[in-house]
Amino acid sequence: MERFYAVIPAGGVGTRLWPLSRAAAPKFLHDLTNSGSTLLRATYDRLEPLAHERVLMVTGEAHREAVCRQLPEILESNLVLESEPKDSAAAIGLAAAILYQRDPDIIMGSFAADQVISPDALFQDAVRQAIYTAATGKIVTIGIKPTHASTGFGYIRTGEPLDVPGAPSAHAVVEFVEKPSESVANEYLASGQYNWNAGMFVAPVALMLKHLEQNEPELYAGLMTIAAAWDTPEQASVTAAIWPTLKKTAIDYAVAEPAADAGDVAVIPGTFSWDDVGDFAAIGRLNSASEVDAVTVMGEGARVFTESASGIVVSDTKRVIALIGIEDVVIVDTPDALLVTTTAHAQRVKSAVDHLKAKGQTDVL
Amino acid sequence: MERFYAVIPAGGVGTRLWPLSRAAAPKFLHDLTNSGSTLLRATYDRLEPLAHERVLMVTGEAHREAVCRQLPEILESNLVLESEPKDSAAAIGLAAAILYQRDPDIIMGSFAADQVISPDALFQDAVRQAIYTAATGKIVTIGIKPTHASTGFGYIRTGEPLDVPGAPSAHAVVEFVEKPSESVANEYLASGQYNWNAGMFVAPVALMLKHLEQNEPELYAGLMTIAAAWDTPEQASVTAAIWPTLKKTAIDYAVAEPAADAGDVAVIPGTFSWDDVGDFAAIGRLNSASEVDAVTVMGEGARVFTESASGIVVSDTKRVIALIGIEDVVIVDTPDALLVTTTAHAQRVKSAVDHLKAKGQTDVL
Repeated sequence: MERFYAVIPAGGVGTRLWPLSRAAAPKFLHDLTNSGSTLLRATYDRLEPLAHERVLMVTGEAHREAVCRQLPEILESNLVLESEPKDSAAAIGLAAAILYQRDPDIIMGSFAADQVISPDALFQDAVRQAIYTAATGKIVTIGIKPTHASTGFGYIRTGEPLDVPGAPSAHAVVEFVEKPSESVANEYLASGQYNWNAGMFVAPVALMLKHLEQNEPELYAGLMTIAAAWDTPEQASVTAAIWPTLKKTAIDYAVAEPAADAGDVAVIPGTFSWDDVGDFAAIGRLNSASEVDAVTVMGEGARVFTESASGIVVSDTKRVIALIGIEDVVIVDTPDALLVTTTAHAQRVKSAVDHLKAKGQTDVL
Repeated sequence: MERFYAVIPAGGVGTRLWPLSRAAAPKFLHDLTNSGSTLLRATYDRLEPLAHERVLMVTGEAHREAVCRQLPEILESNLVLESEPKDSAAAIGLAAAILYQRDPDIIMGSFAADQVISPDALFQDAVRQAIYTAATGKIVTIGIKPTHASTGFGYIRTGEPLDVPGAPSAHAVVEFVEKPSESVANEYLASGQYNWNAGMFVAPVALMLKHLEQNEPELYAGLMTIAAAWDTPEQASVTAAIWPTLKKTAIDYAVAEPAADAGDVAVIPGTFSWDDVGDFAAIGRLNSASEVDAVTVMGEGARVFTESASGIVVSDTKRVIALIGIEDVVIVDTPDALLVTTTAHAQRVKSAVDHLKAKGQTDVL
């Protein structure tokens, strides 16, 4: 357990939660479950009992101040700031390279900053089992038992049980499969052999880097050069010179999938409840507590009045919002942008944001 | 024609257009048709060619400044300000009494400040015919040919043609009938014998007051006392003493219906198009020009983006409004209040406002 180091990549804007989540105030900086904690803070608190102060944060330079306000205990040397987004292979690869530089025996665990998980104890048990399994020389993904035939997630095909002391749930991974069609998703669900890929994994940094080197040698070389300069006076200049040149690719392609083909990946099926808060319908599910008639209301200053209405209101203003005779509506009210859609169409918010971007309305994105 | 004096009562808040129309900024102070004129200004301009400067305005004290800004040409002595609303019999009765005091031969015409009428020439022709008919000793209502079986308006049952020189359309009125049920409204429509009662009438002030005296003697006496003090130094003190004591009742009950029973009422069926802008669906109808896909957008600063959406957006802000996959929606976006409903439910806005009032949310009403 002393080899464990938690990494929290916090990059995505969470476009599907626009206009609540946006470039300047992404999803992980919001308290989307009315818990009193932002998603980022909750992620940190969930990992802290396992990692103590050994938490490395990877985020955009623009979020430095907000992240430090959320996580005042994070060490300056553990804050990796991206000058521009370079996708997950570079972000997580740099974390692995920096940690490897500090101690080649570190087992890293990477956990997105914008997921909702409960209870903490079951999550921590899964991470503990993942660490024991990783120590046997595996990249260990923590899978999510599917609750429905989702076409929005990738899946992990689970193989034989592994015999790892302290990790009774550990299984081999046969393969990762990309987001399936609905009929294929139904087959996966029925087979009981698949878990959702939530992008959570635990692995020896040395093994991560080995696969990265094999699959993306240039990216690997660039990251190792930055890591060699990390914690030295040259950190800033070397990073500024190399980071913009790095290839954009996903960690799944650069490491996870080829490692699975090589038989190096295991899975711990998670028994906790999990939600990636992918759209406003999720916010409705996660906030059943505060209801005005059949409307789920989020926002401290919200003044919502309803008559024969149902749906979700996310209010980031103090305005009165009156809903009359409208069903399954999704309303997100912020000072400079208003979204009105339905729970059924909430997944299409991303394309609306692309549309706004194309029209040059960048002030509200 | 020289006996004609136009009266414009501008009292109603237009609750069904909340939050666009509200106590501090009622319907008649808005440009609801994107014409460049408020409803009040358009009403004045429509009457001016007939009445010249002979226009008496009756409104609430709170609207004095806004009304004077809209109608800078109105004479101070022609501005009747109510310290509190007392319904239409007191408002129109006071106008009649003041005009009677000035000249007992005046023929007054009363026209609400918040209706949309076009073209002006057809309206003016109807008013001219009404004036000629009124001069024969009639209270003359200008009826509206029904376009559908509305249950939201009162109806006028039309009788025999009258033989009035200069007023070929003049007919007797058999009776006024209140808002009917749907089946009754269908019968009215099919019979061709009925017109909508739009509350527009033209009558000798002496005849108006005669019927008011017969039906509401105390109200009549109070109004005559105020009128006697009008245009004198006692105007303010007498009005302040008497106005609050007056009975609240509608001009229909106090004058029009009993006058019809007495055979004193005629009708000029209007041939102009008419809309009382009773709800947001009406705003949609009256503003077909500015469309974003299938969404009618009102508001100069509006920044509306749609995807598979239809309905009406009234924007009183500069916020971006994104509509995704929502049909027949009605959105009214103001700085402190937001309404989201559907064209089918737009008529229920009034009850929502009552609900807000009951909950003490008066700051936005």
